[in-house]
Amino acid sequence: MEPLSENACFGGSQLVLRHGSRVCACDMTFGLYLPPQAQDGPVPVLWYLSGLTCTHENAMTKAGAQAHAAHLGMALVFPDTSPRGEDVADDDAFDMGKGAGFYVDATEAPWASHYKMRSYVADELPGLLGDFPVDMDRQAITGHSMGGHGALTLAMGSPGRFASVSAFSPICNPSASDWGRKQFAAYLGDGDHAAHDASLLMADRGFDGPVLCDTGTADQFADLLRPETLAQAMAARRQPGAFRMQKGYDHSYFFVQTFIGDHLDFHAEALGL
Amino acid sequence: MEPLSENACFGGSQLVLRHGSRVCACDMTFGLYLPPQAQDGPVPVLWYLSGLTCTHENAMTKAGAQAHAAHLGMALVFPDTSPRGEDVADDDAFDMGKGAGFYVDATEAPWASHYKMRSYVADELPGLLGDFPVDMDRQAITGHSMGGHGALTLAMGSPGRFASVSAFSPICNPSASDWGRKQFAAYLGDGDHAAHDASLLMADRGFDGPVLCDTGTADQFADLLRPETLAQAMAARRQPGAFRMQKGYDHSYFFVQTFIGDHLDFHAEALGL
Repeated sequence: MEPLSENACFGGSQLVLRHGSRVCACDMTFGLYLPPQAQDGPVPVLWYLSGLTCTHENAMTKAGAQAHAAHLGMALVFPDTSPRGEDVADDDAFDMGKGAGFYVDATEAPWASHYKMRSYVADELPGLLGDFPVDMDRQAITGHSMGGHGALTLAMGSPGRFASVSAFSPICNPSASDWGRKQFAAYLGDGDHAAHDASLLMADRGFDGPVLCDTGTADQFADLLRPETLAQAMAARRQPGAFRMQKGYDHSYFFVQTFIGDHLDFHAEALGL
Repeated sequence: MEPLSENACFGGSQLVLRHGSRVCACDMTFGLYLPPQAQDGPVPVLWYLSGLTCTHENAMTKAGAQAHAAHLGMALVFPDTSPRGEDVADDDAFDMGKGAGFYVDATEAPWASHYKMRSYVADELPGLLGDFPVDMDRQAITGHSMGGHGALTLAMGSPGRFASVSAFSPICNPSASDWGRKQFAAYLGDGDHAAHDASLLMADRGFDGPVLCDTGTADQFADLLRPETLAQAMAARRQPGAFRMQKGYDHSYFFVQTFIGDHLDFHAEALGL
């Protein structure tokens, strides 16, 4: 584990760390924010999964989450969105390959050798956080766009792990969207696409904790996100939670930063902070 | 005035605008945040001047200022840091030419034809804000690094215009620093360097309002910033204000975002909010 940078931030520390990933078979970089309370012992942790084209850095610099995390006493983890490196397969499209791991474990060539973002985020990276003062018995998860898809599917696919899940403008129904069908076909072939579709998982099993989802009414990608499918599935299941459409907001980090405080308060309550 | 983007943010609107600049003789781009209160009438305005290598965008996306501005009811202006365009003179060094206008009006070739950032920020851009619901009788100014230098020198050089001035890790004494001597020699030749040196201006005339200055004790550029010169000058003049060294913080936006709320509260009080 190699520290790439450390910056004081709201009385805590914003770290960027690099490590060799076994499951992705390449070096991976992630951000870790430790609030001031971590100096006195382990603190709960919120995972933030980012969207298409992002690295570990986008949310770390633009979401404004550290201010709230420092106030609440919550660590934040910002993983990358795909494997990286010259020998990692890629695609000319911005929504395939690097920056577009979709939080699945690829089974098809040429992707299968590195694109294991589900196992990376669900298994490998949590195991590495033991070196830091974070309480892995108190985890929550959120994400934006492709990362909202990742947060919702990982939470529903890992019963008992996360106290709460939230999402900003998530890709809700990738198996019926151009943000999903192409990628799942490439990465998973004929594999189980429904296991990576938040709306289908919500209909099938739901989540054993509270759910918060925000999408802007002016989101320029709404047709690709298909928020109506998750709203319907949450209501049909009587899933405890809130599904909100925020008037006038779009898909940008100006939207995320506006509501990140709400989301951190939501997770803090579920985490017992 | 051409709008390049508009994003809803904390109930207000983050605009990016482009216009032909008369004084810089090129197109210029700036950010303008209008808080929700601007929908009901003109609001006070805080100028944020950015540092070396920055455009209008850095602080707009990374300083976290909008959250506080929306709460207080304050507009924010984020100017660029230099003229732009293919026919604008530049230099291979990151601290000369584009992204390094130093908030002066160049008098020397090849810079004089476009590098008029003092006049641009002090005169031309304020004149263009009349199209928006901002109260130009209630202005304050802040900035980071080279932009802290800009804020302090512009405030002290424009008596009566700004209710308050603050700075994050400002270049305090450019006429005695490698961040200043080279640039002033190139842009101003043998002109009046002292008129653009915050510590010398503070010793000579001070500021007719409160001053707030924050610098990190772990600032990697401290030797270039020379904070001790401004601290000495403020205290010697009995300048009302606060000069703070913040333990463990560096020169980054993780530092700026940590204290931006303090700075906006400081300006809000001076602006009567």
